[in-house]
Amino acid sequence: MPTLSAFEDVPLAQKLGGSLLKIYKQDNHLRKMFLSYKVCFTKEGQPWISPVVPKIRQQLSRDPSLNYEYLPAIGLKSFIQASLDLLFGKYSQVIMENRVGGLHTVGDSGAFHLGAQFLKIWYKKSQDVYIISSQGERHGQIFRDMGFMVHEYSFWNSNKLRIDPNLIFSVVENKEIFPFFDIPSQGFFTGDLEEDTRFLQYFVDHRFEFFCSQFLSRNFGIYDEGVGLLVVVTFSNQILLCILSQLMKITQALWLNPPNTGARIITSILSNSSLQEEWKQSLIEVVENIMMIKEKMKEKLRLMGTPGSWNHITEQRGTHCNIGLNSQQLDYLIKKKHIYISQNSCINLTCVNGSNIDYIVQSIYEAVIFTKSLEQKSLGTIHS
Amino acid sequence: MPTLSAFEDVPLAQKLGGSLLKIYKQDNHLRKMFLSYKVCFTKEGQPWISPVVPKIRQQLSRDPSLNYEYLPAIGLKSFIQASLDLLFGKYSQVIMENRVGGLHTVGDSGAFHLGAQFLKIWYKKSQDVYIISSQGERHGQIFRDMGFMVHEYSFWNSNKLRIDPNLIFSVVENKEIFPFFDIPSQGFFTGDLEEDTRFLQYFVDHRFEFFCSQFLSRNFGIYDEGVGLLVVVTFSNQILLCILSQLMKITQALWLNPPNTGARIITSILSNSSLQEEWKQSLIEVVENIMMIKEKMKEKLRLMGTPGSWNHITEQRGTHCNIGLNSQQLDYLIKKKHIYISQNSCINLTCVNGSNIDYIVQSIYEAVIFTKSLEQKSLGTIHS
Repeated sequence: MPTLSAFEDVPLAQKLGGSLLKIYKQDNHLRKMFLSYKVCFTKEGQPWISPVVPKIRQQLSRDPSLNYEYLPAIGLKSFIQASLDLLFGKYSQVIMENRVGGLHTVGDSGAFHLGAQFLKIWYKKSQDVYIISSQGERHGQIFRDMGFMVHEYSFWNSNKLRIDPNLIFSVVENKEIFPFFDIPSQGFFTGDLEEDTRFLQYFVDHRFEFFCSQFLSRNFGIYDEGVGLLVVVTFSNQILLCILSQLMKITQALWLNPPNTGARIITSILSNSSLQEEWKQSLIEVVENIMMIKEKMKEKLRLMGTPGSWNHITEQRGTHCNIGLNSQQLDYLIKKKHIYISQNSCINLTCVNGSNIDYIVQSIYEAVIFTKSLEQKSLGTIHS
Repeated sequence: MPTLSAFEDVPLAQKLGGSLLKIYKQDNHLRKMFLSYKVCFTKEGQPWISPVVPKIRQQLSRDPSLNYEYLPAIGLKSFIQASLDLLFGKYSQVIMENRVGGLHTVGDSGAFHLGAQFLKIWYKKSQDVYIISSQGERHGQIFRDMGFMVHEYSFWNSNKLRIDPNLIFSVVENKEIFPFFDIPSQGFFTGDLEEDTRFLQYFVDHRFEFFCSQFLSRNFGIYDEGVGLLVVVTFSNQILLCILSQLMKITQALWLNPPNTGARIITSILSNSSLQEEWKQSLIEVVENIMMIKEKMKEKLRLMGTPGSWNHITEQRGTHCNIGLNSQQLDYLIKKKHIYISQNSCINLTCVNGSNIDYIVQSIYEAVIFTKSLEQKSLGTIHS
């Protein structure tokens, strides 16, 4: 009978992220709110689900012809094809030339993990990874754990309060970086599926090889299914088949077969043009609502005379937006107003709605005024 | 514009397993059959689903109160609790003492991957892994990929045609091996859920620490959901919490959130006593059918005068059974009879049914007679 644990020395792990959410949950204030959720919300404050999804879910549950056997290691093939068509367009050159393929993964973390493990073995040029700092904690950890050197960088210019996209192409080309893109919710950026992935076309047209994580849980509202894809674009069909075969070998030791339900729901929607139209419409509604919320926030901040231009709110696209507050202001919001925003100052705009916008705007105003007054005080001290 | 692929040197990967199934699929013979499927089949040759599952699936799909938000990294907590209760009994000492916990994983591969990665970091005593040879290819690969030294061994005594279980306890205790058990389909071994996991109780009672992969997709018939659990039994609640926290950190880089649907179906069934009873009954029916098939096979083989005792067929338990054929006989079955059985001679007994049993038994008879006649010829050659 063993008398000593083999794991006496295992310490409690530090939580990766999620700690702000934990502090928020422990806050008992009645007006507390958390604005950095990953999930999108409806105007009524419920997690958003594309209205076409529950219909399909019911339909599938009643279909006696469906089988529930293990998926092959590559995943649900019809789902992979439908997702690639969505990403590149059905008649895109790269699909016609059979130079693009994908593996159905468990969410976007699964896609990054799988891709990183492949690159660790087969990418000989470099072990340095450059990652956008907003993704540094979550996806960066995957690469760090595998022994890559991870460098964080930002396209966010905090003086101009905007992203500088022209940098990206030139950096990738000049430094001969192998790109690994992240498409976390196609359609939620502009409301137009094609427009949202147009930048990929640049890389395809210039015959770049790249990986891409395509995550489809958010833009359908089936968050808990973790439906992802690792997309591979390469030079030829022959190289593609070799890469996919090695990726499949890796998945056999990771999860063997990806889960089916979410992929089946998405495939049913994408393979039916009227259902697909219904889904697209639901994306447009979300994006239009976000645009309206942004306009209202900017207008209200200006009407109150909040220092700053606040144009950066409406100039950004997507469900999340860098609100442009500094850490002192974010700290004020948490401590004085019980409004929780993550350290990178990004808020999920779908968390803002008719019933909380006034409180949020008023609080931002106070936070900005408070730090301005502190600045003046310290200036006063210097001059006196 | 890049002119050379970064992956010119990536070779096509050798397929792990599955190749026999591929050869079978390419066989055009009308009577071909594959007897080594992982999935269980009904008497009618359809993948088996516990009849209680489709009802629950429909019910859940109509429930507007359900949310589809991301699960936490540990997974669906009610599912974990229900699965642990199933494994150890609700009022077992180890549950009362809070020394057992689990992480919801993507299938059993996910559970082994997660456990292996943890042990690689935190288990300091040894980097040697002893694995049952029937699992050596699939689960062994996971440990090999992480740099463990994997040794395969067998409890199957091919002379006596039976497994020698007494070895297990003494080997684990004497060699101070950290056990990592595999419960691939509780209930399918004897039809009695408690009986199937009784051996775990020995280790619990003797205060062993161990990991266990608990796979719940097969015994509910939701193969494509990959519903698994990594179960941790340790010395104290304090050590357990440290281990779980480190495991959660690892899952954040693996798949972040496990998929929900399968776990939700299973939890709905296990948390309702009448549904649980219905599920248990469906397991008993499967096991009773397997026992009948085994009796019939043995009886038919004996009535034909097939050399050998064939008691080993009815002496084994579970959905799969080592039929006790050698590689020459298995080869004969494939080439002459188009019956595909994997190299370890294990057949899935649910693949045998009223409409194919006579062909299978006749073929086994022929294979055995064929090799006996070869043996006599070669003996004749030696003596002449």
